[in-house]
Amino acid sequence: MQFTAQEISFMLNGTVEGNPHATVNQLSKIEEASAGSLSFLANPKYEQYLYTTDASVVIINNDQQISEPVKAALIRVENAYSAFSILLEKYNSIKLNKTGIEQPSFIHPSAQVGENCYVGAFAYIGSGVKLGNNCKIYPQAYIAENVTIGDNVTLFPGVIVYFDCVIGSNVIIHSGAIIGSDGFGFAPAGDGTYNKISQIGNVIVEDDVEIGSNTTIDRATMGSTIIHKGVKLDNLLQIAHNVEIGANTVIAAQTGISGSTKIGENCIVGGQVGMVGHISVAKGSQIMAKSGINRNIVEENKKWGGIPFFSSYLDNMRVEVAVTHLPALEKKILELEKVITELRKINDSTI
Amino acid sequence: MQFTAQEISFMLNGTVEGNPHATVNQLSKIEEASAGSLSFLANPKYEQYLYTTDASVVIINNDQQISEPVKAALIRVENAYSAFSILLEKYNSIKLNKTGIEQPSFIHPSAQVGENCYVGAFAYIGSGVKLGNNCKIYPQAYIAENVTIGDNVTLFPGVIVYFDCVIGSNVIIHSGAIIGSDGFGFAPAGDGTYNKISQIGNVIVEDDVEIGSNTTIDRATMGSTIIHKGVKLDNLLQIAHNVEIGANTVIAAQTGISGSTKIGENCIVGGQVGMVGHISVAKGSQIMAKSGINRNIVEENKKWGGIPFFSSYLDNMRVEVAVTHLPALEKKILELEKVITELRKINDSTI
Amino acid sequence: MQFTAQEISFMLNGTVEGNPHATVNQLSKIEEASAGSLSFLANPKYEQYLYTTDASVVIINNDQQISEPVKAALIRVENAYSAFSILLEKYNSIKLNKTGIEQPSFIHPSAQVGENCYVGAFAYIGSGVKLGNNCKIYPQAYIAENVTIGDNVTLFPGVIVYFDCVIGSNVIIHSGAIIGSDGFGFAPAGDGTYNKISQIGNVIVEDDVEIGSNTTIDRATMGSTIIHKGVKLDNLLQIAHNVEIGANTVIAAQTGISGSTKIGENCIVGGQVGMVGHISVAKGSQIMAKSGINRNIVEENKKWGGIPFFSSYLDNMRVEVAVTHLPALEKKILELEKVITELRKINDSTI
Repeated sequence: MQFTAQEISFMLNGTVEGNPHATVNQLSKIEEASAGSLSFLANPKYEQYLYTTDASVVIINNDQQISEPVKAALIRVENAYSAFSILLEKYNSIKLNKTGIEQPSFIHPSAQVGENCYVGAFAYIGSGVKLGNNCKIYPQAYIAENVTIGDNVTLFPGVIVYFDCVIGSNVIIHSGAIIGSDGFGFAPAGDGTYNKISQIGNVIVEDDVEIGSNTTIDRATMGSTIIHKGVKLDNLLQIAHNVEIGANTVIAAQTGISGSTKIGENCIVGGQVGMVGHISVAKGSQIMAKSGINRNIVEENKKWGGIPFFSSYLDNMRVEVAVTHLPALEKKILELEKVITELRKINDSTI
Repeated sequence: MQFTAQEISFMLNGTVEGNPHATVNQLSKIEEASAGSLSFLANPKYEQYLYTTDASVVIINNDQQISEPVKAALIRVENAYSAFSILLEKYNSIKLNKTGIEQPSFIHPSAQVGENCYVGAFAYIGSGVKLGNNCKIYPQAYIAENVTIGDNVTLFPGVIVYFDCVIGSNVIIHSGAIIGSDGFGFAPAGDGTYNKISQIGNVIVEDDVEIGSNTTIDRATMGSTIIHKGVKLDNLLQIAHNVEIGANTVIAAQTGISGSTKIGENCIVGGQVGMVGHISVAKGSQIMAKSGINRNIVEENKKWGGIPFFSSYLDNMRVEVAVTHLPALEKKILELEKVITELRKINDSTI
Repeated sequence: MQFTAQEISFMLNGTVEGNPHATVNQLSKIEEASAGSLSFLANPKYEQYLYTTDASVVIINNDQQISEPVKAALIRVENAYSAFSILLEKYNSIKLNKTGIEQPSFIHPSAQVGENCYVGAFAYIGSGVKLGNNCKIYPQAYIAENVTIGDNVTLFPGVIVYFDCVIGSNVIIHSGAIIGSDGFGFAPAGDGTYNKISQIGNVIVEDDVEIGSNTTIDRATMGSTIIHKGVKLDNLLQIAHNVEIGANTVIAAQTGISGSTKIGENCIVGGQVGMVGHISVAKGSQIMAKSGINRNIVEENKKWGGIPFFSSYLDNMRVEVAVTHLPALEKKILELEKVITELRKINDSTI
């Protein structure tokens, strides 16, 4: 796609300075832009780039001062940053604006597919599925029996949703994520072997959730594993059976949450964190990367970290610093011992 | 599916008390049940729920005392817990009881497919594959050339099995698991680059194994990576080339086992554990979550944990507790130094 | 496939000793070989196996001494190890030597597919894709719009490549790897919810890269996430948006690299390592498994490790050892206190 400075200015309700016919076909950072790029300058601190950039068109704030000659065509707007964000979003929605049913795909006769949906080739939509409007089910995605999906949902290629799961509206699930596989539940049979405990619950993913690539969310043993409204999950997470994640909580990559643990609203959890099962984490908690959380967090809106006995974030930092002093500490104690031995000798001799 | 109290009682060889025509269409925990639910009460401690539950039918033990009015229809049986487990299993086997070949699927003319199998749409069964009876190969699963699979095996959607691998009977593999991809083997070429070492072995998965979603098990360089009978693997595990996991060992999510390591029978390994390559772990070992295991474990049936120099479980606990005392420890040593300095002065003056 | 000792000897330009008609149909280690196996003996230390092996044919060095009777047919060559490696490679290239377009597959009319390619059933090749010569796109792989792929590239089953990504030549990507899913970027909206930041960059994978199963590599917010020439990535890695990994760097399984971090050339990174975002790691760095790297590494060609304040490898080892002495250390300090208390009493009494 190619646009002129004039066309973009029109979209953004801006004013062109310089060549209105300058054309662009990609979006770039101002410091990395090549000819044909559209960039923006929002932070006056980076003004220098305006005079050196190879971008063909740059969006700037109405009040941006210009003190040297500029090669690029300029588009002046009220807020360059938000104007650029609007373009980013438009760009992506054009990229991803597919509709229609590609062949061959599998849609069970009893499945309901809403209006204006895309169903890619080799996608599978099972019996009793209810799919809302404006959904994009990419190739090789799988939606099992009796799954319900709201409006404006995107399942990227290779997403798997097991039977009976419920997905809200405005949800984005990236490739390879598995929703609703069996929880890890086995009962010892007494002879060293294990009997499988049937996992008959489901997963509920509420509105406005985004789930990263190759993340796994297990179905509940009974009842539901619940990902509440607005939660954002990164790649390669493990969410075990009967876990509940509160609204607007954000979790970074490769973290694992064990069975039946409940995380409150508005938490921020770093990458590679592990949480044991059957605990509660208070709302607003922030957990540093790589932590091991093995008991309830009751106080709200605090930072925590450490392995495996976590303490408050600051306590943990003090411990971590102290640990690095340990080898020196050991030497010091040996020296103390020598001093004391000498003191004793002196004392012995003085008595 | 909808059942009456009488029909369920008949299946379980029980006795109905109350309305035999009460209907249920789902299974729920007694404390979470809504109208239309079937629940159970096995633990007398929870008797109170019997009088407050909204479940339409509740299974109870023959000897359960009733001291208040009950809304729900009751089914009395010898053992309410095991009766409910039987229903769970029946429920799931109905859910997952698919047979027949969906189209379009790809079955190579030289492949053998046993009786009573399900092959979903977009599944791929390569040349020379031998598939036993009563198997369920879900949509978008891939079985490469010369793979052998026993009876009663379930491959959920998107499971990938590379060529020459061998899978026993009664095996369940969840979506996105990759069996038999190349081991991570490269030889330095001397100029900074690496030459790939061809990985020509395979993976053997024995009977009664369950493998979680998005777990990866690499093929052996030569010989076999072996998952012995009855092993249960959770989601997102990494099992490297030439690893061997002993019978009935259970491993939780996101753990990684490096190349050629051998884990004994009946071990329990927590989540996010890492093990280095070329070590042995004695049978019956229990490894706490997030541990780093970097040498042989010779003693059987012990608990271990810690990062990265592991010690016994108890030793490690003592260390972990001591670590949290470190900042206080440092202060104490400074105080000791002061005391000794004073002592010295006194001694100096007394001499 | 079955070969005689004579046929193999001919391929390797060797000399047969013993039965030239001995047949083999698999490759095995000499100590694990059964009848029908081809093995090799390169290290004279293992000579004993020559007399006990069940292999039907063994490749040995020209100068290998024989001091006892040998059952197997022998093939003498200049270098037994490299001769065997050649056979391994030939064996694998036969195994994986597929060509042609299987049906049903989806190839958009505007896509260009080079000569001598394999496109498996249920593979998807989107509009504007450019695919080089001698590529193998296995079943259920997905290549989105405008992706460019070089020559001799293998995408195993279920690999997903999002739109606009660029993949070089001689690249191998294993099953379930996701290239180009959205970076994890969200801006707080002020009311506790988050707005998605559109991710419009791409991923560039240069020549000679290998990527393991279920590894995820996110596209850049703007610009490119770059995996440079010769990099080898193991299974289940997380590579976040705008990360750059230098040429010939090797990273083991389950490691996660956060956004915008740059890793230099020729690094070796262990498994389950975590790196925070926006740091640089100097070329030639070696990072031990399970480390947490949270600041720049400036010195080149050094070893590092530890969680989370890393230090040099040796410093960290000292710390780790000292940590295990801590409980003893605490006892010692208590003893020191007692000694000092006694000393004080003595001093008090002598004054």
